[in-house]
Amino acid sequence: MKAEPEAELEEMREAECLEILGRHSLGPIAIVVDGQPQIFPVNYALNGGVIAIRTAAGSKLSHAPASKVAFEIDEYDSSAGVGWSVMVQGVAVDATDSFDDVSWAARGVAPRPLAPGAKPSRIAIEPSNITGRRFRVQPPN
Amino acid sequence: MKAEPEAELEEMREAECLEILGRHSLGPIAIVVDGQPQIFPVNYALNGGVIAIRTAAGSKLSHAPASKVAFEIDEYDSSAGVGWSVMVQGVAVDATDSFDDVSWAARGVAPRPLAPGAKPSRIAIEPSNITGRRFRVQPPN
Repeated sequence: MKAEPEAELEEMREAECLEILGRHSLGPIAIVVDGQPQIFPVNYALNGGVIAIRTAAGSKLSHAPASKVAFEIDEYDSSAGVGWSVMVQGVAVDATDSFDDVSWAARGVAPRPLAPGAKPSRIAIEPSNITGRRFRVQPPN
Repeated sequence: MKAEPEAELEEMREAECLEILGRHSLGPIAIVVDGQPQIFPVNYALNGGVIAIRTAAGSKLSHAPASKVAFEIDEYDSSAGVGWSVMVQGVAVDATDSFDDVSWAARGVAPRPLAPGAKPSRIAIEPSNITGRRFRVQPPN
């Protein structure tokens, strides 16, 4: 068995993770409903470290606020053979019309949902932990 | 305010969701660790309705087995302006060397992780609920 080259998997600093989050706009959010995690792809915008999404009445708005949530983005470039992922853990806030700093930040940007339907409510994710890693793929064997 | 055209968002049947799951190989899994959801992008393979992934020791192997998890895939074609997502809820099973039907199914396929490092363990997701939807994007406004 060959040794695995450690250099092929690299942790990213939080500042770099935030920079990458700022350049993207779509990722899955995970919420927990009665002990069952659920995943929804959402369009988001980043403002001052806060992840802002728009939503309608439904699971996300009913269960995310004041609860622990996760968010993630990743990318894989098959021609370059490199990929990365950024994982966020945090607490969701119903930012639709609250006056706390996180809600203000969430209302200061304009996430653009791709999916149709009115989405009058805003949810903010205040990250408690942001990690990221970059990797180079294993050669075919 | 204009009425939203309902036809632009369409639920998919479970059979179609499974067919789409069978044609893809990468998506986020959500697990819950001490009440905090976490998301990891994973390569998977589908066999008999079971989602099989490979992993090493770590959060997924420590916390997923016998727990409720979620899995999701989605795609958005910006030139066609259409997207879809498939959401899976289920229970994870450590399928590395168990003899139940789900573990057998998980070991009958070869998910190919992109990220480097040995991944000797297998986790199976036995879906309890599979839903999907397809949408056409809102025109720019």
